[in-house]
Amino acid sequence: MRMYDLIEEKKRGGALSDREIAYMIQGFTGGEIPDYQMAAMLMAIYFQGMNDDEITAMTMEMARSGDMADLSAIEGIKVDKHSTGGVGDKTTLIIGPIVAACGVKVAKMSGRGLGHTGGTIDKLESIPGFSTSIPREEFFDIVNRTGIAVVGQSGNMVPADKKLYALRDVTATVDSIPLIASSVMSKKLAAGSDGIVLDVKTGSGAFMKTLEDSIRLAQKMVVIGTGAGRKCCALITDMDVPLGYAIGNAMEVQESIEVLKGQGPDDLREVALELAANMLYMAEKGTIKECRAMAEAAIKDGSALKALIRMAEGQGGDASYIEDPEKLPRAAFSYEVKGDCRGTVTHMDTEAVGIASVMLGAGRSRKEDVIDPGAGILLKKKYSDQVEAGEVLAVLYASDEKLFQEAAEKLKEAYTIEQKTPAKKKLVYARVTKDGVERY
Amino acid sequence: MRMYDLIEEKKRGGALSDREIAYMIQGFTGGEIPDYQMAAMLMAIYFQGMNDDEITAMTMEMARSGDMADLSAIEGIKVDKHSTGGVGDKTTLIIGPIVAACGVKVAKMSGRGLGHTGGTIDKLESIPGFSTSIPREEFFDIVNRTGIAVVGQSGNMVPADKKLYALRDVTATVDSIPLIASSVMSKKLAAGSDGIVLDVKTGSGAFMKTLEDSIRLAQKMVVIGTGAGRKCCALITDMDVPLGYAIGNAMEVQESIEVLKGQGPDDLREVALELAANMLYMAEKGTIKECRAMAEAAIKDGSALKALIRMAEGQGGDASYIEDPEKLPRAAFSYEVKGDCRGTVTHMDTEAVGIASVMLGAGRSRKEDVIDPGAGILLKKKYSDQVEAGEVLAVLYASDEKLFQEAAEKLKEAYTIEQKTPAKKKLVYARVTKDGVERY
Repeated sequence: MRMYDLIEEKKRGGALSDREIAYMIQGFTGGEIPDYQMAAMLMAIYFQGMNDDEITAMTMEMARSGDMADLSAIEGIKVDKHSTGGVGDKTTLIIGPIVAACGVKVAKMSGRGLGHTGGTIDKLESIPGFSTSIPREEFFDIVNRTGIAVVGQSGNMVPADKKLYALRDVTATVDSIPLIASSVMSKKLAAGSDGIVLDVKTGSGAFMKTLEDSIRLAQKMVVIGTGAGRKCCALITDMDVPLGYAIGNAMEVQESIEVLKGQGPDDLREVALELAANMLYMAEKGTIKECRAMAEAAIKDGSALKALIRMAEGQGGDASYIEDPEKLPRAAFSYEVKGDCRGTVTHMDTEAVGIASVMLGAGRSRKEDVIDPGAGILLKKKYSDQVEAGEVLAVLYASDEKLFQEAAEKLKEAYTIEQKTPAKKKLVYARVTKDGVERY
Repeated sequence: MRMYDLIEEKKRGGALSDREIAYMIQGFTGGEIPDYQMAAMLMAIYFQGMNDDEITAMTMEMARSGDMADLSAIEGIKVDKHSTGGVGDKTTLIIGPIVAACGVKVAKMSGRGLGHTGGTIDKLESIPGFSTSIPREEFFDIVNRTGIAVVGQSGNMVPADKKLYALRDVTATVDSIPLIASSVMSKKLAAGSDGIVLDVKTGSGAFMKTLEDSIRLAQKMVVIGTGAGRKCCALITDMDVPLGYAIGNAMEVQESIEVLKGQGPDDLREVALELAANMLYMAEKGTIKECRAMAEAAIKDGSALKALIRMAEGQGGDASYIEDPEKLPRAAFSYEVKGDCRGTVTHMDTEAVGIASVMLGAGRSRKEDVIDPGAGILLKKKYSDQVEAGEVLAVLYASDEKLFQEAAEKLKEAYTIEQKTPAKKKLVYARVTKDGVERY
């Protein structure tokens, strides 16, 4: 077999066989297939796509390229959740405890933030003492004992994806649905859960800006998950507006705790409950409707909050910060961004909001950047809110006052304020399963 | 400027500016832009194409990447000719002398054969003593003295093309019309002639299998040549059937000499005369019709043959081999390939005929291969010929009898013999100039 012939085949719009895909992924990961041939292949895939069999075979081969987590030491059905990334997206911090409180084991591996989107691991680390680097056996032990643990990816997991992603990143081949789907799902398959709920974001703050692209991506991911023998479904949720009001690691933890206490923003609670209901459904806890009621009850009776406290304690975190979230770090300086004119917020460039938070130190523009857990943005006005001239749109937090000017400009540009009433937005647009797309 | 952004732009179907193309070609040739980024760009160009401005800018930048031949030391209008490569295509050996005999200086750089197509330099080197590696000044001196010299590419000419071609060759991006056109024309521009006549082959033995693709390629090359300030036209000529009957270096020289003596195959003479007429036309020797008559006269009066003898002597070759071509090398063993059934040759897979000649030692499958000048194929039957059962289709020549079996099988497969009369074929399908396409 020669990589040249596989490139030619894909270039002409043909489909690669399972054997050819195995040869390609193993050869590239092992260094026998050079970067320049894989770069040509990636661009050919960008233009010609891949069919469902190809995407599934490629994803499984990628998942097998390194260590595969064996969760059989944890009892019961294990359900994982993945978000394609957003701004203010702290749902894992809420859903994990809800699902654990309902008796489903959550053994979750999460990522760090990069670019305009945040990462769960960074958020959890803003709780003093909280450790996300935990050896395999201890991780399983915490899950079995407390019902939940969330750790970073460890060891040699999915090296094929790491190498492929690095190449896509420099060859303008990131935005290909088969390549995004196989990258995400290879990590989910390697992480070992029985069920996977995908939160595919759509809108100005998401990687997929249109609903149809988001649905297409969700369909491919569900095909892969199902093809690999996992239970899998996806919700298409709104990221045209930041989720909740807090953007920044410690303040997102604080907002999540509010939701678990039965308060907090409506949009965040609603999306979290829908995702939690789907995770419980995957774990065969009842109908979707029954699962939704269970999730609501877990907030109401305080059991979800208790699960978060158990998780923090299990992973070495100081649980007093959860009981009293005002103690969480908050950057020393604040700055109010004010609107110039009266009107209604008719659009938010949510990616720009995310970039403004990165400018304040709440995220990374490069992998090496260090995060300031107390930095971030507290929004005061969001989509469809009325604004008076001079009224505060948002408060910025940073450890260095020099960071405010650029971030404030960026944030102000993210708001469109007009003299009209914008259409009402949905929070969840559709649910995608192996049986089809259910639009809401 | 970042190569990443240029890849993204081309991927989305945009056009690169002259500055961007200069950055890309200089950066790649200089090693600052890595192979994997250029590989992604080449595949994006394969899918999105390039407009005329882009192709012209890229070709001129490639031509400028190394030494540019300055032919001003040679008097008069210098006219070059390039063939896209075929089987049995020995027209340069006939046209060069005809044009020189008509008083137009021919200072030609030619290539070696690779794959199923032959190269002029290999053919000339089958004349004992003939040297194609000649220092610049001596080359000019021979042309000024004798009117003609044909040498190999020397020095550091068009390094951008060498590097790009090597990458295209391993990334399945050879068959892209803008990339073929820029590769050919960058070498022609660097070679320095005032006029360029292109012989774009079409059919089963050509790189372009269809007439329309051949015309498209010719149009792009003419656009580049004209855009770079050269006179340029192209003929689309048949390569669905080998040209002439001889395939192999020494025997092609012999067949060329026959044509210059007023004998030889009709198809070869006709194509050579049409190309020669166009070269003379570029050199402003008269109308196409007048130029055609001049070319015919140069054969009839023996002046073209004399020009070939002058060229051989000028380049150190033993001219007695031209006067008595029977002396030219011929491989020790021969083998007759016979047809199985009665009928008419209705199709020839001309690429397969070329591959059979490579198997006998007449060509190279890899650059490092050594050529056997006396090896090759003498066809006895071609397209539209009647064949009796058991009649000889072709005679193979090789220095090792073990080479016959595989080559004979390949050659036999190249013939389609059926009980019907095939359509008559044209030798020249069209003429392409900057003003348009004239179909014959």
